[in-house]
Amino acid sequence: MKSEYVIIPPEEMQSRFCTVLMSHGFRETKALRCAEIFTANSLDGVYTHGVNRFPRFVQYVKNGWIKMDAEPSLINAFGGIEQWNGNLGPGVLNALYSTDRAIELAQQNGIGCVALSNTNHWMRAGYYAWQASKKGFVFIAWTNTIANMPAWNAVDNKLGNNPIVLSVPYKDEAIVLDMAMSQFSYGALEMAGLKNEKLPVYGGYDIDGKLSADPSAIFLSKRLLPTGYWKGAGFALLLDLLSVILSGGLATHEITKQQEEYGLSQVFICIDINKLSAHSVIANTVENIIKDYHQSVSIDNEHEILYPGERILATRKRNSTGIPVLKTIWNQVNDL
Amino acid sequence: MKSEYVIIPPEEMQSRFCTVLMSHGFRETKALRCAEIFTANSLDGVYTHGVNRFPRFVQYVKNGWIKMDAEPSLINAFGGIEQWNGNLGPGVLNALYSTDRAIELAQQNGIGCVALSNTNHWMRAGYYAWQASKKGFVFIAWTNTIANMPAWNAVDNKLGNNPIVLSVPYKDEAIVLDMAMSQFSYGALEMAGLKNEKLPVYGGYDIDGKLSADPSAIFLSKRLLPTGYWKGAGFALLLDLLSVILSGGLATHEITKQQEEYGLSQVFICIDINKLSAHSVIANTVENIIKDYHQSVSIDNEHEILYPGERILATRKRNSTGIPVLKTIWNQVNDL
Repeated sequence: MKSEYVIIPPEEMQSRFCTVLMSHGFRETKALRCAEIFTANSLDGVYTHGVNRFPRFVQYVKNGWIKMDAEPSLINAFGGIEQWNGNLGPGVLNALYSTDRAIELAQQNGIGCVALSNTNHWMRAGYYAWQASKKGFVFIAWTNTIANMPAWNAVDNKLGNNPIVLSVPYKDEAIVLDMAMSQFSYGALEMAGLKNEKLPVYGGYDIDGKLSADPSAIFLSKRLLPTGYWKGAGFALLLDLLSVILSGGLATHEITKQQEEYGLSQVFICIDINKLSAHSVIANTVENIIKDYHQSVSIDNEHEILYPGERILATRKRNSTGIPVLKTIWNQVNDL
Repeated sequence: MKSEYVIIPPEEMQSRFCTVLMSHGFRETKALRCAEIFTANSLDGVYTHGVNRFPRFVQYVKNGWIKMDAEPSLINAFGGIEQWNGNLGPGVLNALYSTDRAIELAQQNGIGCVALSNTNHWMRAGYYAWQASKKGFVFIAWTNTIANMPAWNAVDNKLGNNPIVLSVPYKDEAIVLDMAMSQFSYGALEMAGLKNEKLPVYGGYDIDGKLSADPSAIFLSKRLLPTGYWKGAGFALLLDLLSVILSGGLATHEITKQQEEYGLSQVFICIDINKLSAHSVIANTVENIIKDYHQSVSIDNEHEILYPGERILATRKRNSTGIPVLKTIWNQVNDL
């Protein structure tokens, strides 16, 4: 099956998203902001958490799992840390709000932390990282998810794959590591499955409990492989614990009982590098690290040595005149 | 070759370490504190960063890479973040100092961050995590290292394996994830090599660039596999960037130029959970997460489902009456 694509200019995509959201009752400012984020994620090539996910976002609003008018409310504040209730508002808006608030806290305290309960899927962590680091902040954030990955030595899914993002300012852009604790996301499995491709390395288990690089075999067992085996499983557990302790929100096991992924717990940490000594040489320091990193000897002179986020800049540029969208997906968006 | 062990009571080990350090000029309080940490790491079964590493620690002092009398000095403070210069003092003492200072900052600001330049190997991150979390703090810390791991798609070592530790209070103990960004440490390879065992999963590459679970083949290529392939490599780069931006200290590429691992950059973050709303139910929340986690279905009813740090509690108890030490290592310690 060959997939057919349409090329959608970013402005058209954003405008379409905005219209759809307003037709479902979103106020204009909120619709616009959501549309911007879904478009930016698509522009950056993260289609699984951009245009491809948009219909599901709208469905969640219809189902009442996302409250389109909800605003985050402050629960508790002490020095550099604040706890907010997301009141089940759109995850992308709550996350952007929390990022901005963590930036303010960092400006006042050097380091700022916002812990957010009762929120929804933030789509792509990297979006907020880029926002914060382009403004000169170190950014660290993570979320919990519904259970979708087994503990180490286990067959059933008790862990979320709980993505974490780390970013630092770099030139006028950012170095952004945005990774889930499973070796591959379900989105990546789906993509490989559609193209009838094997994964480049093991991505999970087959139903006989053998490691597998076959997307359909992994879909069948529902056993995703954690990043680095026991390491990613342990990391995922700690990220859930940290999300819940800090926010006071729901844990993965509680989200899982709802059967649908809403009411998540997230943490946003910013550090203001302008408050650090020698802040004037930081840009130079970062450049020297990346320069050395880029001097790595490639395994075959074909594979490039890229820092996290580097490929995205190229995709962003390429997509700026038009974003490739699966025709089936764009039809769905137009039917919303 | 069968390895012979001697069983050393913890008190005897600590006393011996203390005597050795004082004979090399350490003041008593510092000698005692260092001896405590090296013994605690051995007690917890982390021999590679306890007794096995002690002779090298003493050698580094003799070589002048570790300054036994140095104290950390404050470089810059702003709100919840402080930058300290470790002045090349013993890494374990600098790390303990930084942990205590991050705790104080967290008590004042909710969240506290100490960034430490010019320090030395902290041996085992988990030690500080246990200290902080037993006192009721969330703890996150990481360090950079000398280059010992290639970037993704590269053959030469440009990255450190930059361990990170995350911990939360649990009962009167802690849940502690202490992991390096390589799938295995050189210590673990050495151990498997000594026992003539293969690694349980790929740990690096052979000299032909093929993934390998053979410790001796990996030693030959010096190409450790990052945790989760490209993910661990990216994470390691970000941890180096964060260490250096925040502390103003040396980056992995600069440490590597020295040819010896000293003058490291580290970050310590603490959060005071008593400053959070609903802090009285946090213990209960954590217990519910662990309870659910422990209900995972094992792959074969033989493999236990353990949380990070759980195995250590059993080892600590078992070793409390005597720590197994390789005879060759203990002879080295006695010859110091």
